[in-house]
Amino acid sequence: MRATVMYAAGDVRVEDVPDAAIEQPTDAVVRVTLACICGSDLWPYASMERSENGQSMGHEAIGVVEDVGSQVTTVRKGDVVVMPFAFSDGTCAFCHEGLPTACVHVGFFGTNGMNGAQAEALRIPLADGTLYPLPVGEDDALMPSLLTLSDVMGTGHHAAVVARVAPGKRAAVVGDGAVGLCAVIAARRLGAEQIIIMGRHPDRIALARDFGATDVVSERGEAAVERVRELTGGDGVHSVLECVGHGASIETAIGIARPGGAVGRVGVPQHTEMPGSLPAFYGNITIGGGPAPVRAYLDELLPDVLEGRIDPSRVFDRTVDLDGVPDGYRAMADRESIKVMVTP
Amino acid sequence: MRATVMYAAGDVRVEDVPDAAIEQPTDAVVRVTLACICGSDLWPYASMERSENGQSMGHEAIGVVEDVGSQVTTVRKGDVVVMPFAFSDGTCAFCHEGLPTACVHVGFFGTNGMNGAQAEALRIPLADGTLYPLPVGEDDALMPSLLTLSDVMGTGHHAAVVARVAPGKRAAVVGDGAVGLCAVIAARRLGAEQIIIMGRHPDRIALARDFGATDVVSERGEAAVERVRELTGGDGVHSVLECVGHGASIETAIGIARPGGAVGRVGVPQHTEMPGSLPAFYGNITIGGGPAPVRAYLDELLPDVLEGRIDPSRVFDRTVDLDGVPDGYRAMADRESIKVMVTP
Repeated sequence: MRATVMYAAGDVRVEDVPDAAIEQPTDAVVRVTLACICGSDLWPYASMERSENGQSMGHEAIGVVEDVGSQVTTVRKGDVVVMPFAFSDGTCAFCHEGLPTACVHVGFFGTNGMNGAQAEALRIPLADGTLYPLPVGEDDALMPSLLTLSDVMGTGHHAAVVARVAPGKRAAVVGDGAVGLCAVIAARRLGAEQIIIMGRHPDRIALARDFGATDVVSERGEAAVERVRELTGGDGVHSVLECVGHGASIETAIGIARPGGAVGRVGVPQHTEMPGSLPAFYGNITIGGGPAPVRAYLDELLPDVLEGRIDPSRVFDRTVDLDGVPDGYRAMADRESIKVMVTP
Repeated sequence: MRATVMYAAGDVRVEDVPDAAIEQPTDAVVRVTLACICGSDLWPYASMERSENGQSMGHEAIGVVEDVGSQVTTVRKGDVVVMPFAFSDGTCAFCHEGLPTACVHVGFFGTNGMNGAQAEALRIPLADGTLYPLPVGEDDALMPSLLTLSDVMGTGHHAAVVARVAPGKRAAVVGDGAVGLCAVIAARRLGAEQIIIMGRHPDRIALARDFGATDVVSERGEAAVERVRELTGGDGVHSVLECVGHGASIETAIGIARPGGAVGRVGVPQHTEMPGSLPAFYGNITIGGGPAPVRAYLDELLPDVLEGRIDPSRVFDRTVDLDGVPDGYRAMADRESIKVMVTP
């Protein structure tokens, strides 16, 4: 079968690899019908050291179950499923608490040697806890929207939940990438009265407005903080959805938070130290977030997608087949594309 | 009248100063019946640059209202009151939301030129929003316990609230100073099943055990993290009450938090950058806290003190008169004393 392998920064190839196969009785094999490229794939694309064997890439997929191990009971061959970016057993304390990304058996697709989803198929460990069967056929028109539930929409939702978005609150989204745009959807969905999108790409801002953003701040740094304060009666926002992960974006996030407010971080942090410890403290600002428990959010988000109340598929502005994946990485890295969908 | 003035690190004097007096119609003057020295007073005691005029010290007091301005309506001459460490108007949005330490008119006693409570009397701005009348006489035996509601007990409670202590949860308290000890009381009061005190002073640990600590960890750094994990089935604690404020203590706090857990910071942070951004992110650990809204906590905590369910007065292990205040600072800085009470 064919799969995407990254060998070094900028070096993404689509190659023949051994077919995905059951290795453990708890595994399934999923034939990928839709995958995509994630903003977080751009970090190794920018910085990965050369690797002899390369890393199989991709952690977002919808597909059809092709095979299951002997102990798998909740999905079977032919099921159409969402594959969350992390696998989890579904039975440990953390899974029961709604935090499957802290599962005692957690693993992440497309990293640390685990097979990836930008491929014709992949092996799914702990299939019972991981895969989420869908009540639609594999050619359903909603598939691109449903695909976002594997990561980007659930991640935007996580930012909103952690940032305590609620009816009547003021929210700001830092970052106008695909996660930031989904965070706008999530903030609107949870009832925010004001949603400020912080970004500077006209096409993304236009989409953010369609998704419910009420204000746009394109300044950066201290000027951005001042502009948000102007837009919020001087106080800042109750909820900041931090969808970038740079030190500067976290500093901005803390700077625009209202005293007593909350920052939900979902951008993968690029630094060990977090800035803004003092203003966060003196403002009693709470900072939370991390890898989104998207598996746990499916019950809540799926009906809104199925019934058309939200349409996160609009973050996809380009579709490629497997051969087009390397150019898809380039297009996203060059900011030509917001998010690239892959039809293997 | 006499008051405590700090002129430089290590240079604390008790001096004659002009009598406290009404300056604004919203002011009151309080005669101090009990005050104390705070762990946070030890930061300037260790590092203050020499000042020509000095800084009036102290931000915790119980006293009797001596005089009120023409617009003060909720307290009157003769009332016995608690004075929270911050003054606040009681009417702004933040006060209504229970965060008076973010009041639009907030100020802090004993800092930035504001008069302090280690004195015979002091001026209270915004008396209606700030002072909390007590239903007891000025010589009540509970006075030392009630005094802790001006800061240290409310601050320990804030750490517990922000760290989301709840029945059945595991909690750890970083720091065995007076705030840490009150944080143990607060964690117990909110129902924590396990309370780990992290400290190494035998007298403080003994008191922590009396207050409800179930386990003691005296290691530091990585060894402390490992020990807490051993005590918690490998996972860490749901709630960390961070009562120190050093970079190392915050790093430990994040290290011992269970995935999905929360850190409540009340130790005044001594660094701009916060360590542990990556482990906090990957563990979905929430970090919050700041200056405790002790004024807002009085309704909840006061009955427990009045009815004897908690006795935070036990953090006071030394009492001095005003002339003894400089030696009180020395004793606390030398860790001879946990917390010094002052009878002006």
